[in-house]
Amino acid sequence: MAASNQILLSHGSGGKLSHDLIQRIFVKYFNNEHLQAQTDSSILSIREGEVAFTTDSYVVDPIFFPGGNIGKLAVCGTVNDLSVSGAIPQYLSCGFIIEEGFAISQLKTIVKSMAEEANKAGIKIVTGDTKVVNRGKCDKLFINTSGLGFIHTSRHHISFGNTIKPGDKVIVNGSLGDHGIAILAARESLSLRSDIKSDCAPLNNLIEQILETPQDIKFMRDATRGGLATVLCELAEDKNLGVNIFESHIPVKEIVNGACEVFGFDPLYLANEGKVLMVVDETSANRILSTLKKHPLGEDASIIGEIVSDHPQKVLLETEIGGRRILDMLAGEMLPRIC
Amino acid sequence: MAASNQILLSHGSGGKLSHDLIQRIFVKYFNNEHLQAQTDSSILSIREGEVAFTTDSYVVDPIFFPGGNIGKLAVCGTVNDLSVSGAIPQYLSCGFIIEEGFAISQLKTIVKSMAEEANKAGIKIVTGDTKVVNRGKCDKLFINTSGLGFIHTSRHHISFGNTIKPGDKVIVNGSLGDHGIAILAARESLSLRSDIKSDCAPLNNLIEQILETPQDIKFMRDATRGGLATVLCELAEDKNLGVNIFESHIPVKEIVNGACEVFGFDPLYLANEGKVLMVVDETSANRILSTLKKHPLGEDASIIGEIVSDHPQKVLLETEIGGRRILDMLAGEMLPRIC
Repeated sequence: MAASNQILLSHGSGGKLSHDLIQRIFVKYFNNEHLQAQTDSSILSIREGEVAFTTDSYVVDPIFFPGGNIGKLAVCGTVNDLSVSGAIPQYLSCGFIIEEGFAISQLKTIVKSMAEEANKAGIKIVTGDTKVVNRGKCDKLFINTSGLGFIHTSRHHISFGNTIKPGDKVIVNGSLGDHGIAILAARESLSLRSDIKSDCAPLNNLIEQILETPQDIKFMRDATRGGLATVLCELAEDKNLGVNIFESHIPVKEIVNGACEVFGFDPLYLANEGKVLMVVDETSANRILSTLKKHPLGEDASIIGEIVSDHPQKVLLETEIGGRRILDMLAGEMLPRIC
Repeated sequence: MAASNQILLSHGSGGKLSHDLIQRIFVKYFNNEHLQAQTDSSILSIREGEVAFTTDSYVVDPIFFPGGNIGKLAVCGTVNDLSVSGAIPQYLSCGFIIEEGFAISQLKTIVKSMAEEANKAGIKIVTGDTKVVNRGKCDKLFINTSGLGFIHTSRHHISFGNTIKPGDKVIVNGSLGDHGIAILAARESLSLRSDIKSDCAPLNNLIEQILETPQDIKFMRDATRGGLATVLCELAEDKNLGVNIFESHIPVKEIVNGACEVFGFDPLYLANEGKVLMVVDETSANRILSTLKKHPLGEDASIIGEIVSDHPQKVLLETEIGGRRILDMLAGEMLPRIC
């Protein structure tokens, strides 16, 4: 019976088939005592203090792409949202919305890679939910991951960026636009498909390396939807400060630049899934840069600019040929369903 | 321009329109300091001890139904999942997946009713995410809510039900099947539409009333997808005990019974969104029942059965005419997208 290889509406009924699916796939691969208990809520020990809590839904199209899939993205994305807040990611929930007829083998592949990334990041997927909708009522598979992390009081300022001052340096941990172009390539079946991979990765280990002196890290944010430019614009507006960045210092792969020229994209607005923008104290910028460069996910890290008191609320890009242009917040939508 | 009344792909871009939508709708109605900060993660104070963490995605069809809408359901459902674990619900996340073209006025109505239910339940919606997919790639609107609650150690046993023993009584707080039939009525435009309402409600206040002596409460679960029968079957299997329930004691509204006869449904398998099944100590059952009956959400509460050592792993229903039948776990799917 072909149907046994596919997700049926009954897999979302809360009845027998739901139970089988949970046991055979989710409990098996996510494998931890919290999930095994199959309680309505997962009961977790939390260190005294404060927690960081975040949520993201993933609707990326296609669900498999060079360098990852929707499941890997869902784990990394939420781990990164916690990490850039200065939190140590601990627990994830995951909610699946699956289209009737979806191949169970594909679901397995996706869940396996979620488990792998969770292991890499040292976190546990402790609670979940599965809904199935009729054919044509969603596009294959959507995943929500919500995350919990412990956050030490010495790191609270990082989310808010309230210690940022002129002179602080702006750092990124590597090349921009890889995820955006990898999705575009997968979607359009471009020939560059084999040469470009999404940068999708959990950044918590890298970030922990530089958080030994948390007061030197003024702000972090992962440059996902809207890209680096959007993060910088938000920051400048919110802090009423200016930002200067230098095109020649911004790492962009040649193949990404090439694709951007062909398709009329700007790599500064393309989505990344393994890139963090940091604002750091001027005096520690070089030390932080060299720490980043020692980590596999920070080899191409670069100091790309600085915070200035001139032109508050504006981000200025100094181009390679010496011109200057203002970067605005993304106005339209370049690539829908990028994450 | 008509488009300004509708959700556009750009509302999910992470750029300017995303920001406007977040400010104009989510921050406005959910109105709390955590959401206003618009950080990647929300930073929350948690009492020392343990937390309960849960997630659910909501894909109910139709999104508006007698007695509620998808937003009200999403808040109540997750509040209830925390409450039945013995936790005090505190914080919710919400992730929206919206179909391009969705009416912004409808989104506002839904978000407003989420805010109302959150207020009723005394919880805060502290972090969120919005994704927009192209027309035809999802069905109007899906919502994920994940929840965090504080759970005192004296209540840990409730999730696991590990103090259940023969003689314990089984209680429900009111009539079964209202949600299932309300959705059916809305979907089929049945004439009974005006007479039946979903029971969708946050149960945390009701549950707190009876948790003053937590050791008397052995187990709780909200009887959503799969209905009361599925919860009881799971419990019997998991605890290797039997359950006897008495049809004459099970509250079911006449109109629900009537609709079940017409459509061939069994109210014991229909979804509820404001009903909790409790297993309580024999000696305190009457006291708990009278506490429940004093609360508006427990007026029709009833002791419907008991835990027995006979026929382990089986749930027996004694029918009104004195027969007995075994209740099995829901095998198929009666009403897809019920929640």
